[in-house]
Amino acid sequence: MLAAKAREVMACCRLLAGFSEESGRTTRTFLSAPMRDVHAHLGSWMERCGLSVHVDNAGNLRGVYPASASDGPRLFIGSHLDTVIDAGAFDGVLGVVMAVALVDLLERRSLPFLIEVVGFSEEEGVRFGVPFIGSRALAGTLDVDLLNRVDTRGRSVEDAIRDYGLDPSCVVNARAGNHALGYLEFHIEQGPVLDDIAAPLGVVRAIVGQSRLTATFAGSANHAGTTPMHARRDAVAGAAEWITAVEALARSTPGLVATVGRILARPGSTNVIAGVCDTSLDVRHASDEARRIAVATLHHTAQQIASRRQLRVEFETHLDQPAVVMSPTLVSTLERALTTQGVPIHRIDSGAGHDAMIMAACMPAAMLFLRSPGGISHHPDETVLEDDVAAALGTGLAFLDDLARSLSHA
Amino acid sequence: MLAAKAREVMACCRLLAGFSEESGRTTRTFLSAPMRDVHAHLGSWMERCGLSVHVDNAGNLRGVYPASASDGPRLFIGSHLDTVIDAGAFDGVLGVVMAVALVDLLERRSLPFLIEVVGFSEEEGVRFGVPFIGSRALAGTLDVDLLNRVDTRGRSVEDAIRDYGLDPSCVVNARAGNHALGYLEFHIEQGPVLDDIAAPLGVVRAIVGQSRLTATFAGSANHAGTTPMHARRDAVAGAAEWITAVEALARSTPGLVATVGRILARPGSTNVIAGVCDTSLDVRHASDEARRIAVATLHHTAQQIASRRQLRVEFETHLDQPAVVMSPTLVSTLERALTTQGVPIHRIDSGAGHDAMIMAACMPAAMLFLRSPGGISHHPDETVLEDDVAAALGTGLAFLDDLARSLSHA
Repeated sequence: MLAAKAREVMACCRLLAGFSEESGRTTRTFLSAPMRDVHAHLGSWMERCGLSVHVDNAGNLRGVYPASASDGPRLFIGSHLDTVIDAGAFDGVLGVVMAVALVDLLERRSLPFLIEVVGFSEEEGVRFGVPFIGSRALAGTLDVDLLNRVDTRGRSVEDAIRDYGLDPSCVVNARAGNHALGYLEFHIEQGPVLDDIAAPLGVVRAIVGQSRLTATFAGSANHAGTTPMHARRDAVAGAAEWITAVEALARSTPGLVATVGRILARPGSTNVIAGVCDTSLDVRHASDEARRIAVATLHHTAQQIASRRQLRVEFETHLDQPAVVMSPTLVSTLERALTTQGVPIHRIDSGAGHDAMIMAACMPAAMLFLRSPGGISHHPDETVLEDDVAAALGTGLAFLDDLARSLSHA
Repeated sequence: MLAAKAREVMACCRLLAGFSEESGRTTRTFLSAPMRDVHAHLGSWMERCGLSVHVDNAGNLRGVYPASASDGPRLFIGSHLDTVIDAGAFDGVLGVVMAVALVDLLERRSLPFLIEVVGFSEEEGVRFGVPFIGSRALAGTLDVDLLNRVDTRGRSVEDAIRDYGLDPSCVVNARAGNHALGYLEFHIEQGPVLDDIAAPLGVVRAIVGQSRLTATFAGSANHAGTTPMHARRDAVAGAAEWITAVEALARSTPGLVATVGRILARPGSTNVIAGVCDTSLDVRHASDEARRIAVATLHHTAQQIASRRQLRVEFETHLDQPAVVMSPTLVSTLERALTTQGVPIHRIDSGAGHDAMIMAACMPAAMLFLRSPGGISHHPDETVLEDDVAAALGTGLAFLDDLARSLSHA
């Protein structure tokens, strides 16, 4: 039964991947036209499973499955329905489709709590450059200024909501009410960790904190032929030395990842020693203290390199986002559920941000990762194994039953 | 007398810097409108000194000063009249103005050889992306395909010549005839070497050879949060390690300069490990063998780094230009002339290309560098010291006299 449902889940994800703004590849941003097809397709399945469905004023697809008692608390299960540009078929969508499949597997059996399936409208941040529009609306952390942000065609978030037939002035109504039991999200890992250790599933312990900075090295632009090596103040050479130090620190610090993904030399000519070199820095760790120590260390290293080379270096911080620890109670419940399925327990930190990170601000949250073969993510080749989906569905059912038992005993 | 003439030379250079395509800064490219004012101003001074002046069909300003015997050989003295964008007042122009000033100082005294003053039309390569249009025409090494190259406004070299009232079909007539005694060029050093050792003048021993390459490191673009350090194939980290090796090799190899002035990561996002990193490489040395060994070593180092990091690296060679040794005879003559002026002899290699490099293909060539205070070049702050100009003029006169004596004795 789980195997058949897993096949159905994967087929549904592949079908939804065809609802795209671009022909031949999957791109589906916040409340774009193909999102309507996704809402229609999933909404109709949800209704067949006994959920009451609507799209809230932040564009989230929501379906409520009744509890055995009318005053039961509410468990949210979901993920996001938007995609990056030229996306795979599973990032986000899989978590929503699995939530529907789980309720489907209940076969109208009611539990002592409501289940609300949520397909968030926006997580990737593609259309407006700001991620998590959908989950922020539920969590009540949506900055109202965000509604004025415009996309590349000059349409604001507010316009997009109105264009879709929704009412931007009622976005606050999207907020999740009280009596929330928690939030559960299934998501592909988007990395190689589970695949490397041949683990089908991983229980997320924490979503790592992130620092994003720009480091600008400034020296003196000069002639590449007439300036002897000892007389140079070469911004690229200084930045290169620092980038090797960034990598060395991350390699020698357990759990730390640090990345320089952007580098630009100015003036940027073959025959001119660069006077300025801008580099980005992305640092992540599940421990905020470890992350901040790493950033401070890299800052200090850059200053030392700059001073020895008669350069100046300046840092600008763009993001300093704390780590979000998943609910220990829900994590334990997930681990017990895995055990019932005979799936080994692997704890993992999420290096990427997820809706669960936002939802954790207003209710207990947990995530179950499905392995990503080859660690491929944000790419059409991204996939998931049918057996892993089946194991995750089984784990989800066991999770619901465990939760039902603990509520009955309470 | 020399001091007054040096002042006149500097004032003339500063005046010519006002003849610009842009108001407020000096930019004067191949046969642009302000070049006509330069030709008119210098041409009239040249005529007053007894030179027969014309502009050849490659746009070079040329003035011939007669010899005491009608069949005397010909000494060329010159430099270029074009500039970079937002240039200083002395790069190139100084050498032409000093050539005129030297003839002026002869006060119509004739020598056993003709002197031809040349103000080359193009050396910097700004307008058409190809340098040395002027000197290549004199040396007879101008590729005819070059005439079809177009500038950013779609005008070809041929158009530019015709627009100026010249005949592009007669460019070959610009070629220097036989009976050339040699070519002498005064030029600012464009580097800090003479200034650092407090030497006013430097005798150029050789113009260094140049290699220009692109090194492209290719790994795998991936998520900066979800990809552990050990699983990365980070093109920027590989390039950074190599750039530090480039610098280390140049620092430990006497006479070698090596520069990475351009670097670009793709996709170039803060939160994405770069899959590709393009870097430029500029390597120069007075010995072609030393330069080629350095390039081969850096190639090998890149391969080692790439292989250890599971990256690929590819090199593309854009330029492999041999060093050009200045005429030992003319170098000796210059050194004797310096001694008569009480100026200490400093030999120097030119890290930049010059018209003398092109002229050396068809006649003995020599260069005298004037110190650049602070090593500043290709910048409005570029300057030269009046005393150094006077010393260079004195050296030039002694050079002419020495040459005259040696011809009389022959």
